Amino acid sequence: MDLFAKFVESTSNPIAVRSRSFHGAACFPRLTGDIGSRMIYKGVPQVVWSLNNYLGLAADPQVRAADLEFVARHGLSAPMGSRMMSGDTEDLEALETELADFCRKPAVLFLNYGYQGMVSLIDTLLDRRDWLVYDSGSHACILDGVRLHNGRVRAFPHNDVGRLSDVLARIERERAADEAVLVVTEGVFGMSGAVAPLRDIVALKQRYGFRLLVDDAHGFGVMGPTGGGTGEAQDAHDGIDLYFATFAKAGASIGAFVASSSEVVWRLRYTMRSQIFAKSLPWPIVASNRVRLGLIRTRPELRRRCWSIARALQSGLRERGMEVRGTASPITPVHLAMTAAQAGEYVEAVRLRHGVFCSAVCYPVVPPDAVQLRLVPTAAHDLADVAVTLDAIPAAYAAMTGQPVPSTTAAPEVT
Amino acid sequence: MDLFAKFVESTSNPIAVRSRSFHGAACFPRLTGDIGSRMIYKGVPQVVWSLNNYLGLAADPQVRAADLEFVARHGLSAPMGSRMMSGDTEDLEALETELADFCRKPAVLFLNYGYQGMVSLIDTLLDRRDWLVYDSGSHACILDGVRLHNGRVRAFPHNDVGRLSDVLARIERERAADEAVLVVTEGVFGMSGAVAPLRDIVALKQRYGFRLLVDDAHGFGVMGPTGGGTGEAQDAHDGIDLYFATFAKAGASIGAFVASSSEVVWRLRYTMRSQIFAKSLPWPIVASNRVRLGLIRTRPELRRRCWSIARALQSGLRERGMEVRGTASPITPVHLAMTAAQAGEYVEAVRLRHGVFCSAVCYPVVPPDAVQLRLVPTAAHDLADVAVTLDAIPAAYAAMTGQPVPSTTAAPEVT
Repeated sequence: MDLFAKFVESTSNPIAVRSRSFHGAACFPRLTGDIGSRMIYKGVPQVVWSLNNYLGLAADPQVRAADLEFVARHGLSAPMGSRMMSGDTEDLEALETELADFCRKPAVLFLNYGYQGMVSLIDTLLDRRDWLVYDSGSHACILDGVRLHNGRVRAFPHNDVGRLSDVLARIERERAADEAVLVVTEGVFGMSGAVAPLRDIVALKQRYGFRLLVDDAHGFGVMGPTGGGTGEAQDAHDGIDLYFATFAKAGASIGAFVASSSEVVWRLRYTMRSQIFAKSLPWPIVASNRVRLGLIRTRPELRRRCWSIARALQSGLRERGMEVRGTASPITPVHLAMTAAQAGEYVEAVRLRHGVFCSAVCYPVVPPDAVQLRLVPTAAHDLADVAVTLDAIPAAYAAMTGQPVPSTTAAPEVT
Repeated sequence: MDLFAKFVESTSNPIAVRSRSFHGAACFPRLTGDIGSRMIYKGVPQVVWSLNNYLGLAADPQVRAADLEFVARHGLSAPMGSRMMSGDTEDLEALETELADFCRKPAVLFLNYGYQGMVSLIDTLLDRRDWLVYDSGSHACILDGVRLHNGRVRAFPHNDVGRLSDVLARIERERAADEAVLVVTEGVFGMSGAVAPLRDIVALKQRYGFRLLVDDAHGFGVMGPTGGGTGEAQDAHDGIDLYFATFAKAGASIGAFVASSSEVVWRLRYTMRSQIFAKSLPWPIVASNRVRLGLIRTRPELRRRCWSIARALQSGLRERGMEVRGTASPITPVHLAMTAAQAGEYVEAVRLRHGVFCSAVCYPVVPPDAVQLRLVPTAAHDLADVAVTLDAIPAAYAAMTGQPVPSTTAAPEVT
């Protein structure tokens, strides 16, 4: 059969099948105006809840000034070549030192992009005799990293430590002396906002021999007293052997990193294929990430504000009868009892009639059958944004489903 | 066994094993000063041949002005989220339209990063019943894309069209009606400078049913009368079903793209995991890539200059007894009859004693046993740079190996 005919006619991806009706609305919407909590969609002003801009750094004046200064100094071309060949800079090394200090790990390797970093990291660490164990609810970059591993792979049900323990016990009985084990999970799961029971997973190390890799893309800068992440929040950070995170969320930039022992990081520097065989990230991005990390460290009020907005939004939605459950982070999932196609119409109505921009997610972004809104409260929001949203989401839901909106008079409160 | 102990003690990667002695010199050298053909290494001014800055755009004043203007307008944070959810912009769409026009293909999908783009592209196009056939000399991103494919895989010896034909003939006999075939190769092979026989490969389509994907990272902007790439240079471009290239070389930026039929590109937009599940590239990079593409189109003199420097360098090195062979592009490989460790010492001597910066490459970047210099002539070089280099490389080689340098009096000539 012709590859192209087969590819374009495949029905395995429901979003792709419905793409013509989703395009420009539920999928590939076009937001204009300055990046932040107030933007424009199809000419209508919006309160925007779709950006992982947790600390509001995207439009922060210090960040904008730093971006400009570093581009004036370096342009967007430098350095050129992979870091190993000709693309190393003092800012890369300084950023790694500062990240290691912030993350309380001996060393850090900065990575060009989060997605390819995770895919390549798993592949680099393991050989075909090693065992890879992962949470079934993991992000696509972990699942693709798992697929690249040519040794034995075991999944455990999402956040189920009992089942993880069973898996590890079986591996312990089966594995030969030269076989090693890596467990991979996330800190905060990006679609549901659920948090991994890292403390309980770390405790399993007393019984089983394994190393733990945690992708904390949505926890870095957001979770824990200092923003040190989901491990810090659970007092389990020291048990994380490889702490992976990205600048694409709280940092409002791009680039990722992995923090671990000095020896492991040194070896990764020389063996990670997505680093060795790819151009070094533009210098201004790396330099700006140093400034962004500085703000994550020195402005705890941004983190507190993000959490305040999150609590007001989540409790307000619940009081108004919307189903928000499973989250233990700012990420706010709202269950929708409708099909993916209806969800597409629903978000469009909320945007155009109420000026509230949020995203609907369905399979393959979340498990089949799940259709939900995903809202991301940030430090760039205020209580007026929350109030507008608490009116809009239930009202549009009632209009669409015929289900009445529970009445409430409570104004959103910062807690 | 403990994963970390096993990982740091592995001897499978010879560069990693020698990393302590290579670090800061053969590997992870630190170039300072403005990006271009004249930079500083360990305090010594250098003529630099290690940057894939073919057209000299990295330091072009128009490019630098555009970088600054777009960062002033957008900052480095916008847009946020994946393009599908909240990260689409008019510049992304305009860049795709302009690329499609330049590449003479119906449509283009812009990709966040070349490495993850290729890995994910192969995976997205094929299902487990499909056949993947690839050139054995392909870049790491193709090899990792191949590894992600869970169907049948066949390699053919590097640039051997006869053997490729044999492989395709066998597949034709074996494959069922619902099984499709993808052939993957490169336009210009980045380490050797060799060029794929695309015209002959395309001709095989008359006998066998397959689609052809060409990674032309080093050909885009460099090869062919208009810079349209290796297919254009061989009058075989129309036979390339998926034309893949990157802005990280001739464009002196980051980001990649794939050009193909409208239907295939549309479907890729909705199914490529590395695009759907990763943050959209910073806006100024995309906007600046439009300017860079404009310069690739409108300044053919840059391409001519790159080729003139390449011819002067390659013929000059050959006249001086150095072994330069296999390249049919500006990339200039110089065979070194020495071990990888000696090559490390050699490049350091050329840099510090002669002020000529080039890179030595060895396994796993090139096949085991091959040790070579890799020089990249660019439009930013001049004949004085070539003259210095034609003195330095043979002289240092003679000093190290005891082999005499063939005498010559010919000055390098622009042809």
